[in-house]
Amino acid sequence: MGIRIGILGYGNLGRGVECAVKQTNDMELKAVFTRRDPSSVNILTKGVNVYKADDILSHKDEIDVLIICGGSATDLPSMTPKYAKDFNVIDSFDTHAKIPDHFANVDAQAKAGNKIAMISVGWDPGMFSLNRAYANAILPEGKDYTFWGKGVSQGHSDAIRRIDGVLDARQYTVPVESAVEAVRSGSDPELTTRQKHTRECFVVAAEGADKAKIEKEIVTMPNYFADYDTTVHFISQEELDRDHKGIPHGGMVIRSGVTGWEKENRHIIEYKLTLDSNPEFTSSILLAYARAAYRMSGEGMSGCKTVFDVPVSYMLDMSSEDMRTHLL
Amino acid sequence: MGIRIGILGYGNLGRGVECAVKQTNDMELKAVFTRRDPSSVNILTKGVNVYKADDILSHKDEIDVLIICGGSATDLPSMTPKYAKDFNVIDSFDTHAKIPDHFANVDAQAKAGNKIAMISVGWDPGMFSLNRAYANAILPEGKDYTFWGKGVSQGHSDAIRRIDGVLDARQYTVPVESAVEAVRSGSDPELTTRQKHTRECFVVAAEGADKAKIEKEIVTMPNYFADYDTTVHFISQEELDRDHKGIPHGGMVIRSGVTGWEKENRHIIEYKLTLDSNPEFTSSILLAYARAAYRMSGEGMSGCKTVFDVPVSYMLDMSSEDMRTHLL
Repeated sequence: MGIRIGILGYGNLGRGVECAVKQTNDMELKAVFTRRDPSSVNILTKGVNVYKADDILSHKDEIDVLIICGGSATDLPSMTPKYAKDFNVIDSFDTHAKIPDHFANVDAQAKAGNKIAMISVGWDPGMFSLNRAYANAILPEGKDYTFWGKGVSQGHSDAIRRIDGVLDARQYTVPVESAVEAVRSGSDPELTTRQKHTRECFVVAAEGADKAKIEKEIVTMPNYFADYDTTVHFISQEELDRDHKGIPHGGMVIRSGVTGWEKENRHIIEYKLTLDSNPEFTSSILLAYARAAYRMSGEGMSGCKTVFDVPVSYMLDMSSEDMRTHLL
Repeated sequence: MGIRIGILGYGNLGRGVECAVKQTNDMELKAVFTRRDPSSVNILTKGVNVYKADDILSHKDEIDVLIICGGSATDLPSMTPKYAKDFNVIDSFDTHAKIPDHFANVDAQAKAGNKIAMISVGWDPGMFSLNRAYANAILPEGKDYTFWGKGVSQGHSDAIRRIDGVLDARQYTVPVESAVEAVRSGSDPELTTRQKHTRECFVVAAEGADKAKIEKEIVTMPNYFADYDTTVHFISQEELDRDHKGIPHGGMVIRSGVTGWEKENRHIIEYKLTLDSNPEFTSSILLAYARAAYRMSGEGMSGCKTVFDVPVSYMLDMSSEDMRTHLL
């Protein structure tokens, strides 16, 4: 019997965790919990039950790690602390400014329940953060750059969809190649928001809608688009469904730093992701950290942790001997 | 008073550690130990003594972490176990096939002395290994690729210098760009040694030497060059000194893997280094792990560790709160 995984919330992320479990040899999906009517939720794995989220505590002893697949805006701030006392939990909380508060709330509950909770797991925050940390540890004098894309921003797509006359939309965040190349060259450029990314929008307008007005409303939208060079393409729903159905994403974390007695040598560290499916990649990271949480809990550790606190050896289904032989 | 660092061996790597200490706020160089005559070794840091390696044990209580800057062929296999009982030690042992033996020897001594020893620290093995491990943990189904360069291979340069009629030489390992692009595209190519890297040699021949014979001897040399497409350029000593004095290096670790119920989505994880100075970058990594070794020892841990066993939080001169606020 493997590590028994529970999934709370069955959207793109929950389904991604389910798929990721299938790719492991040391884990099994034990149960899915939903706030919807369980009979309306069809999962992919045969023989696994879907339960009401309200009944989750009665399944406490069947679950080794609960992966909370909710949104950062309203779900996770309440859900993760709520379950951290009774389960080892993992979440992907990504509201950077609120991480200290979330950490404190979750830590208190996890410690009270003698459980491990791991928050802000994913690729940003998550693997990008980890790479910023390693690069800063190695090169204390330097500059960090993060680029996102090319990829779909759900938040920006939603913002366009809320405009009058818009039926559907898909927004891509695109890094400016010349800015990326300037960073890679080691010239340490100062880059404005506009110089780092462009935004490309594919919009389905309602019959007879004022397209010029929609376009203007998009490109001048504060916070979302006003600070960027934004391109708007009007296309049909058929084209959107055919050409823009995927949820690709990715990006780069680059640190440019110096070493030497007179700081005469420069080094560039780059971590780059190119992802066909943003949610599935995130889910795969959540599951690797679920393995770590299980082991840390088994060793008697407790409290809230982040990616900074976990040695990679806890994340792999491989003995330390094999890691040293095959990966070192 | 900061973490007190000792350096054993003052070549490129030792000097790099000395420079890296200067860039920290929480460390100080306490002493340098050498097998040469100490009076012949001029270090950069004022007020720090150079001692005979034979006298190192009498300085045991002055050193928190000893960084052993020796070669993997003959120095480290004996030196690291020898000192692991009396010091927290770090080395950069890079003979992949002998890592299990070296680990066992060092582990026994470090445990006997209740010290932390960290072996095979650097970028390959080291940061490259770590990135292979993370990428394998996240994408259990996939393929790993490692490319080196463009950079100077000391071993290959030495091999050319041993040829009759050669006065000096510098060899660059160069990744084949089309192979890198094929990997990045997600096509999962099978690549032979010849398809992954080329070798470029800059050679200073003695007056009247048979250049055609030298070139043939290089390109047909077993293990070093025979399996590669090798280019040989004959240049003057002045040109070599002017254009090929640096020790740049770098490379890429790429994992291409799939997720999804039917493995329908592909993801590419790439970690790339572009280094002006191979030894100084390696030294900077050694020093970051020296910080980790000091803390782990302070928490009562002991034995031999690798990069797989260390959370990044131990490597940074930053509180966990600050890490969560500024790097997560």
